Amino acid sequence: MGKTVHFLPDKVNINVEEGENLLNSAAAAGVYIHAYCGGDGVCGKCKVKIEKGRVSSDKNIQLTEDEHKKGYQLACRSTVIEDVEVRIPETVKTDGKVLKRKPKTTRSISARSLKELIGDWQVDPPVEKRFLKLSPPSLEDNIPDLQRLLKAIKKGCHECEIPNFDHPQLLMDLPFILREADWEVTTILLRGKKEEEPDRIIAVEPGNTTEHLYGLAVDIGTTTVCGVLINLNNGKIIAEASRYNAQIAFGEDVISRIIFSQRGNNLKKLQKKVVDTINEVIEAVCKDMLISPSDISYIMAAGNTTMSHLLLGLDPKYIREAPYTPVCSQFPLTRAAAINISAHPSVRLLLYPSVSSYVGGDIISGVHACQMHKSPELTLFIDIGTNGEIVLGNKEWMVCTACSAGPAFEGGGIKHGMRASSGAIENFHIQPETFDPMIITVDHNAPLGICGSGLISIISELLEAGVIDQQGKFKRHIKHERISKGEDGYEYVLSWAKDSFKNSKKGKDIVITEVDIDNLMRAKGAMYAGYMTLLESVGMSFSDLDRVILAGNFGNYIDLERAICIGLLPDIDRDKFYYLGNASLLGAQLSLTDHKRFRGRLLVSSLMTNMELSENPQFMNHYMASLFLPHTDMSLFPTVSEKLPE
Amino acid sequence: MGKTVHFLPDKVNINVEEGENLLNSAAAAGVYIHAYCGGDGVCGKCKVKIEKGRVSSDKNIQLTEDEHKKGYQLACRSTVIEDVEVRIPETVKTDGKVLKRKPKTTRSISARSLKELIGDWQVDPPVEKRFLKLSPPSLEDNIPDLQRLLKAIKKGCHECEIPNFDHPQLLMDLPFILREADWEVTTILLRGKKEEEPDRIIAVEPGNTTEHLYGLAVDIGTTTVCGVLINLNNGKIIAEASRYNAQIAFGEDVISRIIFSQRGNNLKKLQKKVVDTINEVIEAVCKDMLISPSDISYIMAAGNTTMSHLLLGLDPKYIREAPYTPVCSQFPLTRAAAINISAHPSVRLLLYPSVSSYVGGDIISGVHACQMHKSPELTLFIDIGTNGEIVLGNKEWMVCTACSAGPAFEGGGIKHGMRASSGAIENFHIQPETFDPMIITVDHNAPLGICGSGLISIISELLEAGVIDQQGKFKRHIKHERISKGEDGYEYVLSWAKDSFKNSKKGKDIVITEVDIDNLMRAKGAMYAGYMTLLESVGMSFSDLDRVILAGNFGNYIDLERAICIGLLPDIDRDKFYYLGNASLLGAQLSLTDHKRFRGRLLVSSLMTNMELSENPQFMNHYMASLFLPHTDMSLFPTVSEKLPE
Repeated sequence: MGKTVHFLPDKVNINVEEGENLLNSAAAAGVYIHAYCGGDGVCGKCKVKIEKGRVSSDKNIQLTEDEHKKGYQLACRSTVIEDVEVRIPETVKTDGKVLKRKPKTTRSISARSLKELIGDWQVDPPVEKRFLKLSPPSLEDNIPDLQRLLKAIKKGCHECEIPNFDHPQLLMDLPFILREADWEVTTILLRGKKEEEPDRIIAVEPGNTTEHLYGLAVDIGTTTVCGVLINLNNGKIIAEASRYNAQIAFGEDVISRIIFSQRGNNLKKLQKKVVDTINEVIEAVCKDMLISPSDISYIMAAGNTTMSHLLLGLDPKYIREAPYTPVCSQFPLTRAAAINISAHPSVRLLLYPSVSSYVGGDIISGVHACQMHKSPELTLFIDIGTNGEIVLGNKEWMVCTACSAGPAFEGGGIKHGMRASSGAIENFHIQPETFDPMIITVDHNAPLGICGSGLISIISELLEAGVIDQQGKFKRHIKHERISKGEDGYEYVLSWAKDSFKNSKKGKDIVITEVDIDNLMRAKGAMYAGYMTLLESVGMSFSDLDRVILAGNFGNYIDLERAICIGLLPDIDRDKFYYLGNASLLGAQLSLTDHKRFRGRLLVSSLMTNMELSENPQFMNHYMASLFLPHTDMSLFPTVSEKLPE
Repeated sequence: MGKTVHFLPDKVNINVEEGENLLNSAAAAGVYIHAYCGGDGVCGKCKVKIEKGRVSSDKNIQLTEDEHKKGYQLACRSTVIEDVEVRIPETVKTDGKVLKRKPKTTRSISARSLKELIGDWQVDPPVEKRFLKLSPPSLEDNIPDLQRLLKAIKKGCHECEIPNFDHPQLLMDLPFILREADWEVTTILLRGKKEEEPDRIIAVEPGNTTEHLYGLAVDIGTTTVCGVLINLNNGKIIAEASRYNAQIAFGEDVISRIIFSQRGNNLKKLQKKVVDTINEVIEAVCKDMLISPSDISYIMAAGNTTMSHLLLGLDPKYIREAPYTPVCSQFPLTRAAAINISAHPSVRLLLYPSVSSYVGGDIISGVHACQMHKSPELTLFIDIGTNGEIVLGNKEWMVCTACSAGPAFEGGGIKHGMRASSGAIENFHIQPETFDPMIITVDHNAPLGICGSGLISIISELLEAGVIDQQGKFKRHIKHERISKGEDGYEYVLSWAKDSFKNSKKGKDIVITEVDIDNLMRAKGAMYAGYMTLLESVGMSFSDLDRVILAGNFGNYIDLERAICIGLLPDIDRDKFYYLGNASLLGAQLSLTDHKRFRGRLLVSSLMTNMELSENPQFMNHYMASLFLPHTDMSLFPTVSEKLPE
């Protein structure tokens, strides 16, 4: 299905999916093309000539009729539909020489290994529907309705418990459902927590509804709530949706939400917001498939410790105060409806257990998904975000920790930082001679700011091109129209408003400042110091690692070489890196589909030893040593050493 | 502590408790004294002479100064305070002869054997308080609050489960309770349903509250709700209270309440009424002891199947309709607060399981209390009421049934019938020659009507005196001022208004009619036919019985000889009869105190086979044969045959 794009004069090939944008393809191939407006089709800089094959392009006013005829297209407005050969026009410098081109090594982590990571699983969900034809009662056999049902279930070798009465509706409705359905009903059974525990009836429906058995896996992120609707009869994903967590209105990160929660009725307010968001996700996935939210028979959720607390209405106060104790780490099975989630009143919601205040259910779910707790390989599991969570170990032991990286990776604390939404600069190349930028924005809209992956790209490119030094300072001797001293010290203009906002549209210059670079260094320094501290705590080093698994949405957009270049990831064999995606959601999905895996989740949390870094002197030392690009100890980054300018 | 009363000229002794009323003592001894006003001190007929010893008496205007001096007292206004000799004045007949006196054999069943029946039990309740001193969290040990608590509990070798989240308040409050109490708390643990099941935390209280561990046992009767507050640290009853079930306003018996429940919102209304009643009982027992309802840690309740349904808000519709299936027979453990019982929000209420629509938790509780399911002795367990419940069996097997006796035993369907409340005629003797009455009312108030035990007394006395025949008809040849034809056929005047309501007080004549007698015959006939049918179903007869255990409030006031005389109880060796009292309450009490007994309750219901009598031809035959006093087959009643007039 992939198509090959051959770039000239660089002579670089790249395989891309059909439909991939041509500017993105160039960026992914490490090929530089002038691009000032993020891909919006405004600056008209990214003209390329299609020499073989065809691309699908908008008609763009930036190109003359003549250029069109000669086969020129704007790379940013073209998508690859077949194998194609693309020539990038030569740039003639003021001295008349043609600009030399030097394609970069880029590396995104392949998802090919996902199956290998997550291992085998069965379609054998923790919830089961069973169709029963009951014999109607008679004077000779007039056992109570519930006992009649339990007896019929038991015939199928299931030991069953009577339902919990804090949800009395089931029993209240039972006699009427049985009679209206003429004693042919489908019962929804929840499997016991352990093999030997009896099942529990959670609902009884008239007729045979066994064909419709759905489950919802939800990742409750601080920023985004993602849901996946699964047909539990075959384990297939049938719909997905995600929404920004509506709690954002009350704080960007967990700390600000905890602070907010401490006033008045705000805890309830925060709970309502995340429930509202989950309900929107449910509505979205159900709408897609024309099913009713009440057809969902189980909800498996994972979130960080604070999100889990807020969802259940538990006060997160002491998560924030030393010594950082959550209310609980195993969360009780909850009726979704009891917290106002719009599901069938009997449907249960289960949250993945946490380990500590800052290593939450999202991490356990991720580790559970990739079966780290069953593998002999020494694995470093990393989730990069405002809080970076790190797990080190294998099937015999695991240590975990969280380090407060600050919000830089999510665009926070960055002058023109923003979340990875439309218009965020997410990719960046620099012309190593002219220092001209190639910027690519999310959705190819006019650049509005810089998101986390963009920031990593920018800083690694500036470093590699020698525009900034290893302390993150602009080299003072470079005179360039894009580099100047602004109110926050030296800065580089990524995008001038004039290039992106033609006509009457308002716009602003987007810059990266030394303060921004400093913030990124603190963020990546905290992560790296975290890896070092964990490894040291078990007497190991990076060379002992068999695998590094990146989890989280952030990992999706990360360029491995660049992340290593700035010192965010260790400089080890690239083949050891795996990318797991939204591991939290993946774990929830797998648990929802396979109850045997589901039961294993508690093993994961019980294997883990949590380490607090906040007052750990080793961590502080490693952190100080990491406030450098990539690190003060360059022997830790041999491949970066080689490619950095003297 | 007992005192002896020696009656002259009858030469009958009786041992009574100090403080017993003298008229009641005479009645219990089978000694006849004229008494027309029920014991209200109004008719002045019950004059007796105290010949030795003293009684404590009111000064009564019915006695002259002279009579006082001679040692006369009104028996009804005197209480026994020491051994005493009492002479009943001779009555001279119109023919000048002194009336002959013939004391009756009466027999109430002694409660001496209660301990023997209920067997051993331990103070080892299903709920436990445990005081814990937790080590406060530190950065080195910052496990979550709940896990810290669970760990501390586990040190005491208890496996513990996380609480159910449908009661989230516990977890919500936990961090604050722990910190405010400086990590010294008392946790209330609910033992697992089975030995191997983990305990469950139901509450956490600051400080050491282990000294205050209370439980409430409740019998939820159709008429009366009785509660007993128990100190679970030593098993001692510390307060008791009972209230009329406020559902009475919507129907006297279960059938009328089921009918009422089927309209509009009435099911909820009935639930609210019984909950209100339970709350009044709780308030009463707590007020007595100056404890708060929230100090009660467990509520164990027993009620018939309809009462259990109504308490939990389950629709009893199909209890009333053939083939009579209740919603369930095992009731789920319920948070008392979830049904608005004013208890600590975490306190659980457990209802005894039922067997069928008409053999309910009250019966299981009674059978459980007397350990029928553990005894080799063949036992007939009887609870007499509007519905008579009968259980037959031993530790190997049990059959049970219910027969609709009608409301006669509760005063229903009787012209002047009433419940056993103040002013109800509860005891009756007839002068065998003059047919003059000796009536004793509840509280010795002016007679307002006849309650169940009064009815049995009246009919057995009329039968034995030859006033009525074995078909329950007044003998037409007897001419007596008290016997005449009223609107309901022949009747006997038990009390004339003029004798009981002197001065300006309003009153009415209280009579017993042939229709009343007929109703009683149907009621006792149904019970007897029930015993016969059960015995026959297992190929046995009355002679096989080792024990007959009477349960229920009704049994409290029953005179064994009279009950046998009318054919309500079988004519077998009197020593085989035992009286258990409010067995339903007793079973709940024992379960509340001893969790090992508590676990055994399910064994009782599982051992029982229910038999429906409603369309059973054997039952109908036995019933027809029982519509006679005491029975058409007099060989079944040898001792009654002997004493009845030719």
